[in-house]
Formats: sequence, C-alpha cells, structure tokens
Amino acid sequence: MDKILRIDVGAPGGPKATVEPLGDYAGLGGRAMTSLVVAKEVPADCHPLGPENKLVISPGIASGSAASSSGRLSIGCKSPLTGTIKESNAGGQPSMYIARLGYAAIIIEGEHDRNAGFHKIVISESGVAIEKADDLAGLRNYATAEKIKEKHGDKVALISIGTAGEMRMASASIACTDPEFRPTRHAGRGGVGAVMGSKGIKCIVVDPGGAKMRQPANPDAFKEANRKFVEGLRGHAVTGQGLPTYGTNVLTNILCEAGGYPTYNFKEGQFKGAEKISGETLADTEKVRGGNPTHGCHRGCAIQCSGVFVDKDGNYVTKQPEYETVWAHGGNCGIDDLDTIAKLDFMDDDIGVDTIEMGVTIGVAMDAGVIPFGDAEGALKLVEEVGQGTPLGRILGAGAAVTAKCFGLERAPVVKSQAMPAYDPRAVKGVGVTYATTTQGADHTAGYAVATNILKVGGDVDPLSATGQAELSRNLQIATAALDATGFCLFVAFAILDQPETFQAMIDTLNALNGTSMTADDVVALGQQVLKAEREFNEKAGFTKAHDRLPRYFSREKLPPHNVVFDVPDEELDSVFNF
Amino acid sequence: MDKILRIDVGAPGGPKATVEPLGDYAGLGGRAMTSLVVAKEVPADCHPLGPENKLVISPGIASGSAASSSGRLSIGCKSPLTGTIKESNAGGQPSMYIARLGYAAIIIEGEHDRNAGFHKIVISESGVAIEKADDLAGLRNYATAEKIKEKHGDKVALISIGTAGEMRMASASIACTDPEFRPTRHAGRGGVGAVMGSKGIKCIVVDPGGAKMRQPANPDAFKEANRKFVEGLRGHAVTGQGLPTYGTNVLTNILCEAGGYPTYNFKEGQFKGAEKISGETLADTEKVRGGNPTHGCHRGCAIQCSGVFVDKDGNYVTKQPEYETVWAHGGNCGIDDLDTIAKLDFMDDDIGVDTIEMGVTIGVAMDAGVIPFGDAEGALKLVEEVGQGTPLGRILGAGAAVTAKCFGLERAPVVKSQAMPAYDPRAVKGVGVTYATTTQGADHTAGYAVATNILKVGGDVDPLSATGQAELSRNLQIATAALDATGFCLFVAFAILDQPETFQAMIDTLNALNGTSMTADDVVALGQQVLKAEREFNEKAGFTKAHDRLPRYFSREKLPPHNVVFDVPDEELDSVFNF
Repeated sequence: MDKILRIDVGAPGGPKATVEPLGDYAGLGGRAMTSLVVAKEVPADCHPLGPENKLVISPGIASGSAASSSGRLSIGCKSPLTGTIKESNAGGQPSMYIARLGYAAIIIEGEHDRNAGFHKIVISESGVAIEKADDLAGLRNYATAEKIKEKHGDKVALISIGTAGEMRMASASIACTDPEFRPTRHAGRGGVGAVMGSKGIKCIVVDPGGAKMRQPANPDAFKEANRKFVEGLRGHAVTGQGLPTYGTNVLTNILCEAGGYPTYNFKEGQFKGAEKISGETLADTEKVRGGNPTHGCHRGCAIQCSGVFVDKDGNYVTKQPEYETVWAHGGNCGIDDLDTIAKLDFMDDDIGVDTIEMGVTIGVAMDAGVIPFGDAEGALKLVEEVGQGTPLGRILGAGAAVTAKCFGLERAPVVKSQAMPAYDPRAVKGVGVTYATTTQGADHTAGYAVATNILKVGGDVDPLSATGQAELSRNLQIATAALDATGFCLFVAFAILDQPETFQAMIDTLNALNGTSMTADDVVALGQQVLKAEREFNEKAGFTKAHDRLPRYFSREKLPPHNVVFDVPDEELDSVFNF
Repeated sequence: MDKILRIDVGAPGGPKATVEPLGDYAGLGGRAMTSLVVAKEVPADCHPLGPENKLVISPGIASGSAASSSGRLSIGCKSPLTGTIKESNAGGQPSMYIARLGYAAIIIEGEHDRNAGFHKIVISESGVAIEKADDLAGLRNYATAEKIKEKHGDKVALISIGTAGEMRMASASIACTDPEFRPTRHAGRGGVGAVMGSKGIKCIVVDPGGAKMRQPANPDAFKEANRKFVEGLRGHAVTGQGLPTYGTNVLTNILCEAGGYPTYNFKEGQFKGAEKISGETLADTEKVRGGNPTHGCHRGCAIQCSGVFVDKDGNYVTKQPEYETVWAHGGNCGIDDLDTIAKLDFMDDDIGVDTIEMGVTIGVAMDAGVIPFGDAEGALKLVEEVGQGTPLGRILGAGAAVTAKCFGLERAPVVKSQAMPAYDPRAVKGVGVTYATTTQGADHTAGYAVATNILKVGGDVDPLSATGQAELSRNLQIATAALDATGFCLFVAFAILDQPETFQAMIDTLNALNGTSMTADDVVALGQQVLKAEREFNEKAGFTKAHDRLPRYFSREKLPPHNVVFDVPDEELDSVFNF
C-alpha cells in the first residue's frame, strides 16, 4: 500500500485518475487515513454535496494480509447527514482487494457535472479505467451487482450506491460485496452514499486479478502473532461463541433483559415481541429453513458473525440481519416479524440506505402518526417510497431529524442529526456519553460502552449510574479510533479488552506485517491524533459543546422499566475530550 | 402597559392565565421585551417545539398611543426554523389593542397536551378567558377570522395561526388582522406559528372594548413631537412618496436596475419579467381595477405603504403583495404574472406561512426539478400541498433548507436555515453582511443596508465593494434592534436616517409618551443590549462564527450582470459584533 489513487470527477473531458505517492499520508490507513485527509483537504465550511467535499476510501493497515478479521474499509467525507466529519465503516471484500492492489486510499474529488451522468471506476492490476455507466444508473444495488458480474465476473469486489445515493439522500449508504458477490456490507452511517452520488460515481469495481496477499515484513513473527490473535478471538465467549452462533442479534434478549432496548421510538426499554426476533430465534430459523447463521462478511475472518437468511422455501432473502437492523426495523417500530424485518433489510441494502437511520426514521414517522406502530406492511411501503424517491420517500431518506422536523415532532432520537442506535442512553448511560460526544453524531461503534455497561467486557461500570461513564467512553473512543485505522473488525475489541495477550498479539501482528514497532502507547497516541483532527474539523464546521448533548427529552421523559432519565452532567460530557 | 399576561398551557385542568407586574421587564417593549424574556426564561438548548420554549408577544413602547406608525408587534421564541432566538415582527391592529389594554407582554408557556386540542384566548377589559376552539381547528386564517367575527364582531383584533401553524411547520407564520379585520399582516419569519401551534393556541382575540388610547405623560410635548415626526415622514421621498404611492414593491425596478434582484433561485441578478410585476404596474393595476394602492396596515400610520389587490372584476384577492412576496413568488421563481403572485400571497396568508420562506422554497424545488421555473400553476399547487400537509407539502412547509436537503441540492440560499430575502448578497454586499451575521438567520430587516447601498439613504456605500459593509451593517443592526423595541415601523428609518430632526422628533415622542428622558446614546445602548442578549442565547444554543457565513456557493458562483461573488472577508464579518 504505497500509493494513493486520486480521481478528479471535474476534470475537463470527464473524470480523470492519477496515482501519487503517499507523501504526508504514509503509514496511515482506515479511519486515520480518511479523517486526516478530510481534515487537511476538505474546507470544514463546505457543503457536503458541493465540489469542495471529497470521498476518501481507505483499507486499514492490516487489510489485504492474512491477518484475521482485517477486512474493514473506511469511507470518509464531510457528512450530508450530520455536517460533521464522517468515517463510515464496512466489511466485505473490497478492502482486501484495494490493499492487495497497493492503494492506501482512493480519493474522489472535484465538481461533478450532473448532465454528464454516472461513471464506473474499474481498478485492476493494469491500472484504472473510468467509464460511463448509463446502463447502471437508476439500478438498485443487487441489480447493479448482477450487471457487473455479467461483465467482470464474480471474482472482483464491488463498491456501489443504490438509488438513494444517486438521489443524494442523507441516509444513503455505500454497499460493499461479500464473498458471494452480494452487496450486503454497507458503510451505512452519515450519508456517505450521497457524497458518492454527488460525485457522479455509481460504482467502483476492484479486480484483484493475480495480485497476491500482502506479504509481511517479518513472515515468521506475523504467522505466530496472527495465530495467537486468532486463538484469542476463538477463546473469548463473545467472539468465539456468541457472535458465530447467533450473530450480533444475540444482543436482543440481552438488551431487553437490561431494560435498555429502545421500543416504540425510544418510549420504553423492553419489547414484548423480543423473543420472536431474537438472535436465538433468528439462528434457529435460518438453520431450520436451510440458511446459514455462521458466515464471514469477508474471507479470512475468524469470528464469522454474519449469516444468510432464507425464506420458508429456502430462497435467499438477505444476509442475516444485524442486531441494529432487527432492532431499528423491529422493536423500535413495534414489529415482531423476522420475515418482514429481513425484507426491510434487503430493501435497505438494495436501495442503499443505512438500516439504523431508516428504522429510526420509520419509528419517528410512526410516532408522528404517518403509520401506526407495528404496521409491518406500512413499513415495507415506506421503504419502497424511499427507493422510488417519492415526496414521502424524500422526507424519510433525509433521515430521522429531517423527518421529525417535517412532521413537527420533538421526539427525534438523534445527536448531530444522526439517529441513535439500539441502546437507550438512559439505561446504558456509557453509550449515551458516546452518542453525545463522538465526532460522528450518535454512533454506538465510536465508543461501545455497552461492552462494559452490559456485557461486562473490559470491566464493569453500572449502566444506570452516571458515574464513570465519561472516562469509560473516553477510553473506548480513543481505542476505537485507533482500531478503525487497522482494518481489524471492531468485534476483536471484545477479546482484546478482556485478554491482554490477545491485545499484544494484535499489535505484534501489525508490527510484523508492516515492519513497525508500535507499542500500546502508540495505539493510544494514534487514537488521540485521529480524534483531535476530527474534533478540530468539527469545530471549524461550527460544532461546540452545545452539540455534545442528547436531545433534552432524554433528561425529561423517564424510560420504563427502570424509569430512568439521562443524567450524566454536562461537565462530565465536556470532560470526555480532555486530551 | 404595566402588566404581563402569562398563560400556562400545561396547567392542570387546561390552560390558565395569570397577570403579573412587570418586575425585571419594566420599561421594555417589542423586540427588547421578547428577546430579553426568551434569553432569560427559555433554556437555549431546548427543542423549539418542546415544553421549555415560550412564545412572547409584545407591543412596542410607543404602541397603543397616537404616535404615528407605532403599531408593530414583536413575537419572540426559540425558532423552529433556525434554532436561534427569534423576533418576528408584524403590523396590523393587535399591537395597539394589547397596549391599550395595558399588557406589555403575553407569554405563552408550558407543555401542551396534544389530545386536548386547540384553544382560543380572549383578552378584553374584563380579563382573560380561555376556551376550547374545536370549531376553529383545521381552519385557515381567513375562515378563522370569519368565525371570530361572527362571535366577537370586527371591532376586535385577531392573532391566529392557519393550518401550517397547527401542523407545526417551520415556515408557519402568525397572522394579525388589519383595520378591515383581514388576517393579512404576518409575523412571518422563523416559524413562530409552529411554536404557537405547539402550545395548542389557535388564536388570540384582543377586544379593546372601551379602552382608550394610551395617554402621554406629557401631552403637549407629545403632540408637538409627533407632529414633527409625521412631518418628517411625509417630507421624505421614500416614506412620503415612494411607499404610499407604490408600496414596498417600488423596489422591483430599483433592484433589477442595480443587478441585485435574485432571479431563478439566486442564479441571476436581473429578471426579464420585472416590468410586469413592478410596484408601478401593481399600483396601476389596483387603481384600474378598483383596488387601492395606498392603505395603512394599522390605523394611525402616516406612511400607508399597504394596499388592496383585486381581480379583474374588482373582487378582493389579497392585500397588496409586498416587494418581498412579489419577488419570492415572482422573479425568484421566474413567474411574471401579478394575478398568480396575488393568489399565492393570499394562500400564504390563509394557510399561514412566511411568503419569503415559501417563495424561496419553491425556487429551490424548481432548481431541484420538482416543477420548472416559471410554472405558475405548479407553484399554486405546491402551496396548496403545504396547506393540506401532504408529504410534499411537509417538505416545503419545513422551509428552503430542509427542501434542499430532501432533494439533495447544494443551492439553498439560506443562513442559519432561514431563506434569504429579495436582495442578492453578491450585488448588495451590505445586506449580505447582515444576512450572515444577524442573530435571526438571513433577514433583511435586521440591518437594512439596502438603504445605504442602493437607495443612498443614510449615506452612500458602494453595494459592489466589500469595503465599509461591516460597519454599515453593524450600525444598522444596532439601530434596528432599538427601533424594533419601540413599535415604530422599520420604514420610519428612511426618514430618521436622512433627517436628524425627524430622529429627534421620534425620541421626543417616546419621551413625552412614557415620561422618560432617553437620548440618542441610550438608543444605541438599548440596541446593543438587545443584540448582546440575542447573541448570548445563540451562543448557548451552539452558534459560532462558523454560522455567521453565507453558503459557500455565493463565494464561488458569479452573479450576472455584474459577475460578482460575495467577497467580504470573514474577519470583517467577525468584526460586526465588536461591542
């Protein structure tokens, strides 16, 4: 990974690719790359859909190697949803192939002429080709993947936008294909798909051809470190058992039990229909029907938290819906039918929208009376409206904050205009601190305090108490910012937080791969560097501590069954970034 | 004006009125009252539609007296459109009557239970009555006024919301009736109608009964000062000739001539169809058809800039559309038909939306391809969608910024999410500074530099040069904040800026009325005090200098015919509030 691919979509005569050395960006990958490029090259006051914004795509520094679970891809820009800096993260095959082809980043920039239509970028060993994509424009992600397969086979990886991205909707995602060439792994959050759409890029085909796996600087040390790392992942209860067996949806019962499962647009903390949509039920259903509850989103992952959901006749419906999706479209909307939720998951992936934003948005629409809570057919229709870009679809496609604004509703569970994920901040206060303070808008992955609050991984901090949450969130946010630079999946955190030897094995793996001598302190320093750059960007974009808050109603409305409000003091929130 | 009426809409058993002494708010009126009450009593971080927001209605300190042109009413709150503090200002009869009944302010506060429906407040000499208004709910403003007239006669004044306010749309206005009991004078900007709707108040009937005009502390001095003041107004070319003869729409030809008339959603600075919709044509049309081009929005105004627009058969259509309305629905949308514009003006007033926000929003929708520029029938349909609250109507009703977001468009001519009025900031740079820096979101009235840039009132500052605009805007913003506290119409500024003796006569009028000894320095101090309180509120709400900017495209896209961009340096913008 010794070069950067830069594509100027506004070049005279059409989009033009240039390849350049890493320069200032040497050694960076993933979120460290995307955030530092955006912080340096994108004016913080620009419009996210304007010519000054850039879309930065970067594999982590372990991606493309044999290191386990290292296939995460970071996609960064100024977010059309939040107005903040954004790093949105996806699994799938593209990261591995981009890294193998030697690109540390793809930067898409410049002013797209909308009359010029959409383009396709093909990256292979023989270079970069950019072609008109009139045959793909207007297609959803699955149809796009089909067309690409016809021409390029299924040994390539695909990064694409659906109709939502083409319409520049603020909830639009960017799809990455999985090992079976299905567009199921999404950089979902923050509307990155709208930025890709605004640049007139429909898709990027990454053809690894004969490009080999990245060779470690120190092969023996790498092999040994990776072995210990995998051993650690397999030996931990979450990464070795819970996730492979049930997928992320193992959390449904756990969060309901804890009273922190947001239900009916964040009005209650437990969902009566939880059992019907839990990870256990989901895995059983998949097994009985001939689907698959244990599957990797990319080749070479030891965790295998993904899966395949099929209908009653055994036909593919969608990938195994994630916990966040099952919650957003399920309990949060009062819907307890897995088949409906799976259809919604498929539609979201196909249209290309973030399942969290879309589910929360429908919950807001239900709260506003557009359709009743629990209306499964109504929810399917609403998502179809998004795909077609009807006026109602335009509202919903703009996300939960805009939907609440259009319907005159206070109860929008958002921070910095991004929808909250599947943990009520009143009953899981650590993640509430993360929602409030992360540079990304409400985001659980930015500092997953659920681990320590609920799963008791990395310690034990009472989820209902305000005490200790700021420190917990701070440490997790720093660690996550560093981890997001590596290409390792965030789920390795369960094992490395609990098992010091697995943490060391991960660092050893990185060092042996890249010929570096990174220490645990360096990891912290990297995380802090990334967060500081992101905070600085946001400050220039007009964000202050007044934006590091939850909506006021979370401090006013009590959440059953614990009847708690969010009561972490503002001063505590403001102490998170004390470095 | 020695008391405040406070209405708690969340009181047990239904809305409850209490009357209290002025306390800390003694001596305040208009914008000084609304902004200081909001700054003190409303938490800056609250949701504008939530229980913590308050709606403050206050006549100016000259209102209710015989002082000419003193019938302006201020309505303040945290704005659902901008998130900033808001003072929205209207003419009409209510201000005079509220003042005569002795109320310096009406404060509507508390948590409305939406199941309780809407209420009507009746204020009279015998006290305050609050009644259910089920018969009025769902009615537009004209129908509401008709119903009120049936019950209360037309000697009362009415403050009401239409369906937009009921639906809590961010562009919703609050209507005030004119001398003929027509709901034509609107506190239009910033969505104050949505806050009234969120409090469940459909309307306020102000019945002056036998309440007399406010008696001056020093009657002789008052009479003499007011005489000189009126003389000054009548003697100035703008207030004595231009406005009475042609209304505010006299500006169409002037701004087109100056190349600062925003056309086709701020793409050009001159409109080919201007002659067909100019103030001259409008006044002629009204005269020929039997309308009236010279009319006062409230009794006792020497300027008489209002008018009555009738159709070809002489039937009332709407009040004479203001320049801003003719521009927003006209040139900005490529529509050059006065009858269409008049119908749109009527519909806006009837539904209860800000004509500036609505016109600019339709321009944005046209730019996004929803309907073509120049499509008069299409524009009428769009406004009707707003009135009915269809999904598309919900988008448009949320204003220009949300509409652009829903349709993925960069070109939203807004500051702090409020639509820019009828002066392109690139060709009238002084008003561009005001748009960028005022506490209110893009607002021409907050510091009407057009006066000095274009009309050469109060001096002469080249509209196309960046030099001197910050100082000009600062001085005008301070003077305006003070003037908005008096109840005097902003239009008196033309005369008092040019004629020192008229300015002195205005101060003498105030002093003789209220028994005060205000000086010119005190006026400046008052203006600064109001602005500082507003700035402080906004800062707590999360606004920084990053928000005191125009959208970036105004610095990138050149405006014909002068081919200028907005180039006032950021440091100049940041120097506006140097006090």
